[in-house]
Amino acid sequence: MQSIESEAKIAQEYLARIAKDAEAKFDEHLPPVKDRPCRLHEAMRYSMFAGGKRLRPGLAKATFDMFGGKGEKIWLATSALEMLHTFSLIHDDLPCVDNDDYRRGKLTSHKKFGEATAVMAGDALCIHAFEMMGKTGNAKAIELLAHLLGTYGMIGGEMTDIECEGKTVDLEIVDYIHYHKTAALIEASLLVGAMLAKASEKDMEIIRNYGRSIGLAFQIVDDILDIVSTTEELGKDAGSDIEKGKATYPSIVGLEKSRERARELYEESIKALDGLTCDTSILRSIAAYIITRVK
Amino acid sequence: MQSIESEAKIAQEYLARIAKDAEAKFDEHLPPVKDRPCRLHEAMRYSMFAGGKRLRPGLAKATFDMFGGKGEKIWLATSALEMLHTFSLIHDDLPCVDNDDYRRGKLTSHKKFGEATAVMAGDALCIHAFEMMGKTGNAKAIELLAHLLGTYGMIGGEMTDIECEGKTVDLEIVDYIHYHKTAALIEASLLVGAMLAKASEKDMEIIRNYGRSIGLAFQIVDDILDIVSTTEELGKDAGSDIEKGKATYPSIVGLEKSRERARELYEESIKALDGLTCDTSILRSIAAYIITRVK
Repeated sequence: MQSIESEAKIAQEYLARIAKDAEAKFDEHLPPVKDRPCRLHEAMRYSMFAGGKRLRPGLAKATFDMFGGKGEKIWLATSALEMLHTFSLIHDDLPCVDNDDYRRGKLTSHKKFGEATAVMAGDALCIHAFEMMGKTGNAKAIELLAHLLGTYGMIGGEMTDIECEGKTVDLEIVDYIHYHKTAALIEASLLVGAMLAKASEKDMEIIRNYGRSIGLAFQIVDDILDIVSTTEELGKDAGSDIEKGKATYPSIVGLEKSRERARELYEESIKALDGLTCDTSILRSIAAYIITRVK
Repeated sequence: MQSIESEAKIAQEYLARIAKDAEAKFDEHLPPVKDRPCRLHEAMRYSMFAGGKRLRPGLAKATFDMFGGKGEKIWLATSALEMLHTFSLIHDDLPCVDNDDYRRGKLTSHKKFGEATAVMAGDALCIHAFEMMGKTGNAKAIELLAHLLGTYGMIGGEMTDIECEGKTVDLEIVDYIHYHKTAALIEASLLVGAMLAKASEKDMEIIRNYGRSIGLAFQIVDDILDIVSTTEELGKDAGSDIEKGKATYPSIVGLEKSRERARELYEESIKALDGLTCDTSILRSIAAYIITRVK
């Protein structure tokens, strides 16, 4: 049995490797800056290439390979997933939403290109993602992805997050926000990879449970890092959750209990994988990475 | 040969009939207000039920029926198309974009619900539309629709429209803006209906040409109405194009030449339909309606 730290290291190396391939595909799939409207294409690329862990592409590629998926179509999905994640960040950073000036150590889209362009760049990335997904030929995967992105998924979580700012909320609401705003797209990434590899319904259900656990753990760790890290370490404003009166895990149960909950979720995610007969080692490593990451 | 006015009347009655059925489906397809996030669902419904001609659903249903389409899936597409149109209006009305207070005689989304909710309501309608399209099972239609919506289509037109405000532009740019911002989604609506009815590639090409002509005519008529109508007649701010320094047809070639161009496009659209063997009477009527409409 490996230590959780060495497990995490395996995942980190895996994600870095996939990120490199995925990024080469982003470049291929994003419209070139020379095409009209040039500045919009520049804004889309600026945010897509602002760095980031490329976790969602990594998750989709992991389940695709795990279930024996073959061919190039997975790269359409990895581009689509990162475009959707980036779209959500651009719109979340807008002055009327979270009003953030920095993201991944760079100026946010609206700070760099102006608000109108930032709104349109987010819209364009969202639409372009569905064009990529259309090219996979899998309409079922599109339905599932859109469902987990929409008001019963990511957008629902973001909206509730905004509505609860500065309000006293209970753990049920924080769980709702975290699950929807973060875990839903993580779950979707895993499921899209599995679907494109034609995984069975039963296996999809297992992946769904694993995804929910690591997704929620991911956001709890995010909340913790917002408190214990510096802005430099994070590449975005540290301490901004408290400043904005955001509903977070530590604000309700404290840092120690938040850490315990993340650890529990990690164990639940590993247990969920028990039902699979294929090699799940990479998903176990990713779960370890998610709860030990420092940025 | 019927007069253009009586042709237009037939289209108007047809569109009103389809609008009624399409609206019943919107109600079925939109998330209920009782579900969380309630206020976001309320905002989505507010804009979707703010009236409008429901032209895009009408166009999709027309080609679907014309090419012998059967079954209920067309209503998923009609809902999706109206959601996409509404999403674009909500984001276009935002303070950082066109900054409009009224739309269809009612307060715009951000005026009624606040900016953050308006951004999210637009996003949610866009995503929900792709969920509906996913349910049609036709990934090719999704790819085509997203392409005509994205930076090579509607969003490209909107962005260039914003960038050209207050600038001196030539007819080539106005044609680019009008084709992309308006005609692309009109073309997409016709093509999605045709695709769901399994129309041939050759027939799709004819529909594409027809769609481009009526789409461009539609926007030229819009430009003309912005000048010759009152705010009350339009349900939105009349004269706002001039006020904002928008690139329009009349601002470059004058009212009379704009009317001539719309008429030419009408004739081109009718001529395009010559290649079809099925009954095209409803598309001919719709073209007549588009260039004679007064709001």
